[in-house]
Amino acid sequence: MTQKIRICLFGAGEMATIHAMNMISDPRVSMAYVVDPSKERAEALAQATGARVVDLDTAFGDPTVDAYLIASPPRTHADYLERAAATRAYVFCEKPIDHDMGRILTCMAAWKGREGRVQLGFNRRFDHQFVTLKQAIAEGRIGKVEQVLVISRDAEAPEVEGFIHSSGLLRETAVHDFDLIRWLLEDEVAEVFVMGDALINPAYLTVGQIDTTTTALRMAKGTHVTILNSLRAAYGYDQRIEVLGTLGQASVGNVPESLVILSTAAGIRGEKPLHNYHQRYAQAYRTEILAFVQAVASGGVTTPDATDGLRASAIAEAANLSMERRASVTIMADEARRDL
Amino acid sequence: MTQKIRICLFGAGEMATIHAMNMISDPRVSMAYVVDPSKERAEALAQATGARVVDLDTAFGDPTVDAYLIASPPRTHADYLERAAATRAYVFCEKPIDHDMGRILTCMAAWKGREGRVQLGFNRRFDHQFVTLKQAIAEGRIGKVEQVLVISRDAEAPEVEGFIHSSGLLRETAVHDFDLIRWLLEDEVAEVFVMGDALINPAYLTVGQIDTTTTALRMAKGTHVTILNSLRAAYGYDQRIEVLGTLGQASVGNVPESLVILSTAAGIRGEKPLHNYHQRYAQAYRTEILAFVQAVASGGVTTPDATDGLRASAIAEAANLSMERRASVTIMADEARRDL
Amino acid sequence: MTQKIRICLFGAGEMATIHAMNMISDPRVSMAYVVDPSKERAEALAQATGARVVDLDTAFGDPTVDAYLIASPPRTHADYLERAAATRAYVFCEKPIDHDMGRILTCMAAWKGREGRVQLGFNRRFDHQFVTLKQAIAEGRIGKVEQVLVISRDAEAPEVEGFIHSSGLLRETAVHDFDLIRWLLEDEVAEVFVMGDALINPAYLTVGQIDTTTTALRMAKGTHVTILNSLRAAYGYDQRIEVLGTLGQASVGNVPESLVILSTAAGIRGEKPLHNYHQRYAQAYRTEILAFVQAVASGGVTTPDATDGLRASAIAEAANLSMERRASVTIMADEARRDL
Amino acid sequence: MTQKIRICLFGAGEMATIHAMNMISDPRVSMAYVVDPSKERAEALAQATGARVVDLDTAFGDPTVDAYLIASPPRTHADYLERAAATRAYVFCEKPIDHDMGRILTCMAAWKGREGRVQLGFNRRFDHQFVTLKQAIAEGRIGKVEQVLVISRDAEAPEVEGFIHSSGLLRETAVHDFDLIRWLLEDEVAEVFVMGDALINPAYLTVGQIDTTTTALRMAKGTHVTILNSLRAAYGYDQRIEVLGTLGQASVGNVPESLVILSTAAGIRGEKPLHNYHQRYAQAYRTEILAFVQAVASGGVTTPDATDGLRASAIAEAANLSMERRASVTIMADEARRDL
Repeated sequence: MTQKIRICLFGAGEMATIHAMNMISDPRVSMAYVVDPSKERAEALAQATGARVVDLDTAFGDPTVDAYLIASPPRTHADYLERAAATRAYVFCEKPIDHDMGRILTCMAAWKGREGRVQLGFNRRFDHQFVTLKQAIAEGRIGKVEQVLVISRDAEAPEVEGFIHSSGLLRETAVHDFDLIRWLLEDEVAEVFVMGDALINPAYLTVGQIDTTTTALRMAKGTHVTILNSLRAAYGYDQRIEVLGTLGQASVGNVPESLVILSTAAGIRGEKPLHNYHQRYAQAYRTEILAFVQAVASGGVTTPDATDGLRASAIAEAANLSMERRASVTIMADEARRDL
Repeated sequence: MTQKIRICLFGAGEMATIHAMNMISDPRVSMAYVVDPSKERAEALAQATGARVVDLDTAFGDPTVDAYLIASPPRTHADYLERAAATRAYVFCEKPIDHDMGRILTCMAAWKGREGRVQLGFNRRFDHQFVTLKQAIAEGRIGKVEQVLVISRDAEAPEVEGFIHSSGLLRETAVHDFDLIRWLLEDEVAEVFVMGDALINPAYLTVGQIDTTTTALRMAKGTHVTILNSLRAAYGYDQRIEVLGTLGQASVGNVPESLVILSTAAGIRGEKPLHNYHQRYAQAYRTEILAFVQAVASGGVTTPDATDGLRASAIAEAANLSMERRASVTIMADEARRDL
Repeated sequence: MTQKIRICLFGAGEMATIHAMNMISDPRVSMAYVVDPSKERAEALAQATGARVVDLDTAFGDPTVDAYLIASPPRTHADYLERAAATRAYVFCEKPIDHDMGRILTCMAAWKGREGRVQLGFNRRFDHQFVTLKQAIAEGRIGKVEQVLVISRDAEAPEVEGFIHSSGLLRETAVHDFDLIRWLLEDEVAEVFVMGDALINPAYLTVGQIDTTTTALRMAKGTHVTILNSLRAAYGYDQRIEVLGTLGQASVGNVPESLVILSTAAGIRGEKPLHNYHQRYAQAYRTEILAFVQAVASGGVTTPDATDGLRASAIAEAANLSMERRASVTIMADEARRDL
Repeated sequence: MTQKIRICLFGAGEMATIHAMNMISDPRVSMAYVVDPSKERAEALAQATGARVVDLDTAFGDPTVDAYLIASPPRTHADYLERAAATRAYVFCEKPIDHDMGRILTCMAAWKGREGRVQLGFNRRFDHQFVTLKQAIAEGRIGKVEQVLVISRDAEAPEVEGFIHSSGLLRETAVHDFDLIRWLLEDEVAEVFVMGDALINPAYLTVGQIDTTTTALRMAKGTHVTILNSLRAAYGYDQRIEVLGTLGQASVGNVPESLVILSTAAGIRGEKPLHNYHQRYAQAYRTEILAFVQAVASGGVTTPDATDGLRASAIAEAANLSMERRASVTIMADEARRDL
């Protein structure tokens, strides 16, 4: 029997647990270590996965680790990525690499030439619905793409307190949509305009946050993209895409909790969309991690990689700038590439 | 300018009013007479349509009448049809011709050879949705038809009192579905099985009525047809058809009150179907009457005609027999034809 | 019997014909005159409606005319409106009043204080689907509105030649959407950003035209509105609205040609949306004109009125400016009001 | 660590493989033996599951076996069930127990008093959609049930040759629907009428088979049930249920391959239903086996059990009789119970 792939996990929260459980369902994987400031959480997850709780130095000092899985808070990502760069291991890193573009660039420098050994956690690329949508486009079913609409709304907005340390809707949430668009259209964002407001909860403004954005992108090939983001939709997690092309439109709607339809005096009632990202993207999270394991097992290249993380964050950066200026901001894709 | 088509209307109730108003929207039509036992109702409708209230003898005695429109209670249909047979006029007659098959046959005898001058009120044949469905089948889009489903449910069941003088669910309501199937499939019913019960209101049994039937038909060409009838559907008037063929299925669902969808914490809510036959078949009633006017104007043949009325009632008759016997009953289409 | 409402119609093309036929279905209306440079077209329409073909001076010189219906080319609207202002008659005027804001304002000056005697042809306000949507919002079914999406795409793009004399997608087509939003939300547009391109046919640029726009509006009450316009959708005339509020979302989809669903080896196929504005808005055109007739008959106030025409054009003007500047443009609603 | 549950599997075909793979995903399970006449298939499945290939006597002679999983051809079920009855083990048995009611009854006699240790393979009871539907009914969302429709069609009909040894559409396919109805409505079938024909392939008649049935059931509580079965639907595996009650209707439609909608000049096209039972019921198969493992692990009672297998077959038996007689056949539920 071949040797198992040894994984070291940073984080023991919700996302870390999802990734860990999906990972160990692959018989090739052995969860070696869990690192988390909360001893209790770390021990619980270590026990569930057959791992051992260790500190950072042990984690990065063990040359038998094949892959680091970074699912700790965003502020730690860049540091851990840099330390992992000194090892021979692969990394799976939750988005974003960092809040700050400068920090992302220095971190990327440490991985120069090996960007394909860092997989970024853009799970939606692995969703069955979106993959099927991309295939339909790639097969030419709708011709050349002209106008795209992405609706991406959370079901429940956070408390103001829980929002203080966030790098914001554009950098933390919309960044998924920016990556999705690059992947779906196989094209780069050339120009971005964002209108942003705190319409759900004006108190967000006191901590420098907004909750509703309307984003218009012009892609390098000319395609128009609109992204509607909101931190609350009373009917659940709203995740839809529509793509207009010369020959027609391809779209994906929400995935309902069940297909039961109730027809009563109150109307014809279908079920709400699956309520949150755990539920809606359960299959995508599993597939994404298994793709990473496969890359590690085969010594292959990961996708989406570190460069994809950089690109998505660069769009978020420009988006924030546009919102301030009330004007569209040009993204020089080539410049961005040269920076790597 | 050519002379107007002179119409004599029997009845001044709901159905008579719908037909009258649709008729006078055709500039070729002049409403000459209204006949109804209720003076008040008759006068109101006469005034609205520019007609004069007369008695039966005047109505049938005027040789300038081009067409009689019979929308009076079912028990009067056969008598009026017979009297009209003695004139040169066309007749539009609401279904059924009569409750009793023997009476229908003697009445038909009076129209022998001129069945195509009597149009029966099977309005659904003129509904845009069903016409489009029939076209799809006729164009071979689903191949040879194998299995058909008709769901036909009223929104609100009548009071027991209001149901006493009815000839029953099968003869008065399902008769529409029997005609629809003959027309849609261009085929005759060879065999019928009916399961019938008073599930909505067991008190219906005290007046010899039922409210729920499940009907299985075997058509002459072999096709299976199921008809689900009910006198109540809490969500509105339920009128659907599904047709399975060798190449696929063609179906028509309900027409909602509007296309507005409300997505809230309570689910994804569409509007109910249009609530009753006025609303659901408003366009079909208009088209049916204008087709009749056109037949009168051109001296053409009406469709559906008196023979279609006979056939549908013959199926209802067999259906009642099947329900009693708890066994399927064979309909000899050729025999029925010879009876004409 | 009371005297008929005498109408004078300018134009004898497609839109003029729709309005004329709807108008004469109201028994109170008498079509008096038709004015059109094409004698042939004018005579045909005059004959169909019982009118007489006259020249402009006769049309404006007859004091018995109760209402002018302006459905001639846009460049004539302002002139006719001004001449009509010298009479006692009401006016129904197709949008836009003019291409040029200055010209609109001088024209409006002639109607100062009587704006409510000029009805602008914003037909979508009378569409059953949109009226039901507005009611749902007004009833508070979705709470306070936050984010709105309007998709408005023609089925077939014009030839380049046919597009030369147009005042453009924003002034001629999107102007409908601008009015719709003001009406639906009962709010004014405060800020507009537009991204515009010729993606369908780059040759449009040679005549100064574009075919695809993505518009973001910020309303006076803060609501975000996105409008996606395109001159071509291979699947038909695409007319949809989605409104997100604190309690949920209300939306209206397209109206299909029929409800027939074909399920075959090729998939589950529903019918395309009604193909053009005649078909999709047939009922709205009828209701709009009958509302105008009612205003004339009762001496009431029309809606939408001349001011609504001005407002919608002012938004189109700002939209064009935004597109050039690649930045959002503020619309001072109060300023605009003062200009009247 | 506790001892593993030792399983012995009969069969190594498609269904056996599905069950085996689902079973070993439960860490409590150890696949001990595989028994199949095809050495090759048996070895392959044994290797994939860590089991050993043995003969029947070894299989039934090992007292450490905790559960037998019978997924061999139907004609073997009763024999294996009887041999297993002599052991202490639980049994999971694919439906039907046998073609012949007499054989089923003698087999049941061997399990008298222990029917709850035999789980029958009625997988649909574990489907998320149907479970949610049953909950809605149980919660009273549609009131008292009146009329039910089940549509159950295979995507592809078998070759005549492959159909020779089948016990027929009613005994092998519709038996699933009979069980589903008993479970969904928590009621027994009192009366059955079936119309059956070979409409897809008349050659089936040469081997005593039919391909299309229309079934009407009257339940003990009075509810009407219609089941439409067909061995071919060009658009895929068609599995739908509609339940009408006093307060409304609850329904479940098909599960499509994806939610991608293509809108083109050819119409609005959704994806076909999942194509076969593997795909459509993948989750149900997994849940059903894990429920069985849990029953074995806890020493609990299985459901559906052997009695459910008997009941469903008794309905199929009466259904065949009805088809011959062209009349409805009464099922005496109490009689059936006494026979146990």
